[in-house]
Amino acid sequence: MQYPNGKKSSVYTKLKSNQTVYSNRGMSLEDDINDTNQYYLAHNIAIIHKKPTPVQIVHVDYPKRSAAVIKEAYFKQASTTDYNGIYKGKHIDFEAKETKNKHSLPLHNIHQHQIDHMKQIVNHGGICFLLIRFSVSQETFLFPAEELFPYWDQQFNGGRKSIRYETVKKLGYIIPIRFQAKVDYLAVIDKYYMENGGTTNGR
Amino acid sequence: MQYPNGKKSSVYTKLKSNQTVYSNRGMSLEDDINDTNQYYLAHNIAIIHKKPTPVQIVHVDYPKRSAAVIKEAYFKQASTTDYNGIYKGKHIDFEAKETKNKHSLPLHNIHQHQIDHMKQIVNHGGICFLLIRFSVSQETFLFPAEELFPYWDQQFNGGRKSIRYETVKKLGYIIPIRFQAKVDYLAVIDKYYMENGGTTNGR
Repeated sequence: MQYPNGKKSSVYTKLKSNQTVYSNRGMSLEDDINDTNQYYLAHNIAIIHKKPTPVQIVHVDYPKRSAAVIKEAYFKQASTTDYNGIYKGKHIDFEAKETKNKHSLPLHNIHQHQIDHMKQIVNHGGICFLLIRFSVSQETFLFPAEELFPYWDQQFNGGRKSIRYETVKKLGYIIPIRFQAKVDYLAVIDKYYMENGGTTNGR
Repeated sequence: MQYPNGKKSSVYTKLKSNQTVYSNRGMSLEDDINDTNQYYLAHNIAIIHKKPTPVQIVHVDYPKRSAAVIKEAYFKQASTTDYNGIYKGKHIDFEAKETKNKHSLPLHNIHQHQIDHMKQIVNHGGICFLLIRFSVSQETFLFPAEELFPYWDQQFNGGRKSIRYETVKKLGYIIPIRFQAKVDYLAVIDKYYMENGGTTNGR
């Protein structure tokens, strides 16, 4: 498991308890997802990884007797979502977005090609969604890709450039916070996707 | 689509013809897979992407009025395979290996954690394999992960540290070279996996 910020996993020290925690302030959504994915992996529940940050490498030095050093590189826009993998034989694909805004999720940090990718995944029978955290209230929602697309599209027809908190709450599913799986999104998938044959239509 | 070597895609100039080509010398396996994946994507056949190269970023400069520049970074070992995605609702996961060796594929450039990852994917019902190219004969094989594991394991019990060409030929499936899909591995998956309910056991 990669911990890009150098933090060590806290998963293994937490396996002793089944306790539910109700507050988790201070950890980023990405940290929580990484811990959750590591928990899923360690317990053979699902195999889900974050993709590496895409980087355009321009110049590399190859010093004698030591590792190659990248001396010039640039961040590239991701062409897909950040997370994917497999759960109960199904392809899972999602993106995580955290906002400090209390009342809505701004759409400006989602990109058109990520939406295109999500449409393709849905079209091919994958389970695809956004994980949305409102950091002030510390609530995290699973928002199905199928529900996202109309809100994405309407911004180009004069509509809002964000999704209201109330909409996320109404069309999304709140994710239980557990001590072991901090953002236990598979619990939501079990309940709302798997029971309805892989769609949210049966809701 | 990323073309790490700066080459432009040649897919679009090739869509006019259904012609089968029998020789493809000079293109790397990675280039051919990228072209093939782009063809699959453009024709809505499958959604399969190469993961970005994992890089440990140490130092970034943020110059005024221009893009952030990564000034120091190092290559990291991948913790998964390089390619994954979705095809006919199934999770697909694979690694590509090319060798100039005529008689065998050396195992030293596959890593233990990639094998661990492949075992997990198989265990969770994904379609998982190696694409192996013998560059001298320009033959490319799909070698199912299930067939790879015993050869991987036996090297630690005094066995060979490579897989013989004859073994690859016997237990793998040769991949047709097509003008549009240069390494048309989905043709093999259609024939050998999908008809047998997602396994190669029916062979």
